Amino acid sequence: AIATPALAQAMPEVRWRAASSFPRVFDVLYGTFDRICARVAQLTEGKFRIQPFPAGEIVGGLQVLDAVQAGTIEAGHTASYYYLGKEPAFAPFTAMCFGLNTRQMTAWFRYGGGNELAAELFREYNIHAITAGDTGAQMGGWFRNEITSVEQLRGLKFRITGLAGQLFTRLGAAPTLIAPADIYPSLERGVIDAAEFVGPHDDERANYVRVARFYYAPGFWEPGARLHFISNQRAYAALPDLYKHALDVACAEADSDMVARYDHLNPQALRRLVAAGAQLRFWPRPVLEAAWRANEEMVADISRQNARFARVMESYNRFRGDQFQWFRIAENSYDNFAFSAAQTVR
Amino acid sequence: AIATPALAQAMPEVRWRAASSFPRVFDVLYGTFDRICARVAQLTEGKFRIQPFPAGEIVGGLQVLDAVQAGTIEAGHTASYYYLGKEPAFAPFTAMCFGLNTRQMTAWFRYGGGNELAAELFREYNIHAITAGDTGAQMGGWFRNEITSVEQLRGLKFRITGLAGQLFTRLGAAPTLIAPADIYPSLERGVIDAAEFVGPHDDERANYVRVARFYYAPGFWEPGARLHFISNQRAYAALPDLYKHALDVACAEADSDMVARYDHLNPQALRRLVAAGAQLRFWPRPVLEAAWRANEEMVADISRQNARFARVMESYNRFRGDQFQWFRIAENSYDNFAFSAAQTVR
Repeated sequence: AIATPALAQAMPEVRWRAASSFPRVFDVLYGTFDRICARVAQLTEGKFRIQPFPAGEIVGGLQVLDAVQAGTIEAGHTASYYYLGKEPAFAPFTAMCFGLNTRQMTAWFRYGGGNELAAELFREYNIHAITAGDTGAQMGGWFRNEITSVEQLRGLKFRITGLAGQLFTRLGAAPTLIAPADIYPSLERGVIDAAEFVGPHDDERANYVRVARFYYAPGFWEPGARLHFISNQRAYAALPDLYKHALDVACAEADSDMVARYDHLNPQALRRLVAAGAQLRFWPRPVLEAAWRANEEMVADISRQNARFARVMESYNRFRGDQFQWFRIAENSYDNFAFSAAQTVR
Repeated sequence: AIATPALAQAMPEVRWRAASSFPRVFDVLYGTFDRICARVAQLTEGKFRIQPFPAGEIVGGLQVLDAVQAGTIEAGHTASYYYLGKEPAFAPFTAMCFGLNTRQMTAWFRYGGGNELAAELFREYNIHAITAGDTGAQMGGWFRNEITSVEQLRGLKFRITGLAGQLFTRLGAAPTLIAPADIYPSLERGVIDAAEFVGPHDDERANYVRVARFYYAPGFWEPGARLHFISNQRAYAALPDLYKHALDVACAEADSDMVARYDHLNPQALRRLVAAGAQLRFWPRPVLEAAWRANEEMVADISRQNARFARVMESYNRFRGDQFQWFRIAENSYDNFAFSAAQTVR
């Protein structure tokens, strides 16, 4: 092998500081960000260094967009739906209730117009955004009691955020916002009845199984949650093309790598959770149907009030119609037989 | 923006010639290869140029591995199962009957030991291999007549290759090897009864719908087909680290990008195929069950004869067990409800 040559002296040293919306303890969520930064450094032989900070170290987890917009930090790794208070159209770029699953989201962003619609919105916040990782379909959270009917959702104090919170309000529940650190004691003392987070790998760390043993599937409000790597537009524009390409491709890698890590880790975590007493439950079909109807109404209501949300959802739902129909033919018919065959075919 | 600086004069100019196993007409299969080469050039400012050739221009589509092994060309983009005649263990690195789906394959390669097992095998052929793109679950092909029972497979002249061909032999069919250009006339004249290729987007180009209108789902022998970018080991070892990283990350990008293109294009193609007369059919459950059993026997038989195949399949099947169980909980329960809800919930 020949010696590795150094990049030209002419290549500028660029140093960015960047914040994640996630603390280090969530090693896939935070770790994906860490790997993107490492890959960018590797592809530029250390000339472009993005220093990653976990949530709370230099900015709070939900202040990442504000800090990048203001230029306090150059970049961040976050979920756009954290900012739906500013603009509801931020929601579908992360996840929608009964929306596109992980693979379908990638197709929508890259080939269905999703990236262009997201760019248009982020630009108004002085931000350049790239998709960068996904969780896969999430779990529906931890419940102190079984949910066997829609009626049992009435008054349910459920720790859940964002549009999904609004959806559960429409279903009669009482969604509450509780800081992550307070979820466990609140469940233990019965201040809340249920709480959702991500999936087995992350949920295991929080140890909710000890205080709320019914573990529901699926998290129909997050059939995937897509993250974005966001950069201050002025900082991004100043990058040499090579550094922009390095960042783009590192984020594209994260789109498949993050969910692959979850797919590897979740089965092991789920086994341990079940051994620790978790009772797996699927949502009763009437609950899913009521939620589907409530979601259709919610999307229609927000669309009437917000033209941008309406325009994003028009693209999203057209794409969803095509994807849902096609996936039933090959992908889902395969999965349905194969996933259960080892148990059912003798 | 500051001017883009050039890479150091010290960075070596590297020129490779590389061959695809696919002709240009299959624009996603061949196009993925084209994009990998373009991305590598972009990430090295044109210093590392891989010139892509379609199948047949400098080497035949099924001779890519031989040519790379011999060093006639430096690299190629191919499916490892084309070479199972040399070694059956090449098969599971592309696809297995009733095997891992696209997302699960990515997880197995990166975190379940798949990449290490593949590297060990390719090394014996003087080759460095990286996963680089996937088709998603394929269709089951075009049939002149409906298949309503296992009995109807008996004697069926089915154009299908590889381990899937062996599987159909065990089911009583008569798999035949026919060059792609001859499939259409053979179907038309009834020389064969059925033929499979990939999925709607690629199948549409071949126009099989005119001569065999029953279109079966799913292609249970290819729940995804993973491609590899293969490099001659000596050529790869001589690359500066930066060029190796550029190639790695370009291929990682292809792992999500190729299937995203298919997911975008397949629904449109399927609509046109149905409009042109395609009759969609799902395999009857008894056919799937017979195939599942025949596959288990086939894998056991080959494993008894070939220790390496046995070792790869041991890893693969252990991972498959975990993945199939976990995917039923969140991912598949979500898909099953959501994909059909627009039609079923009122």
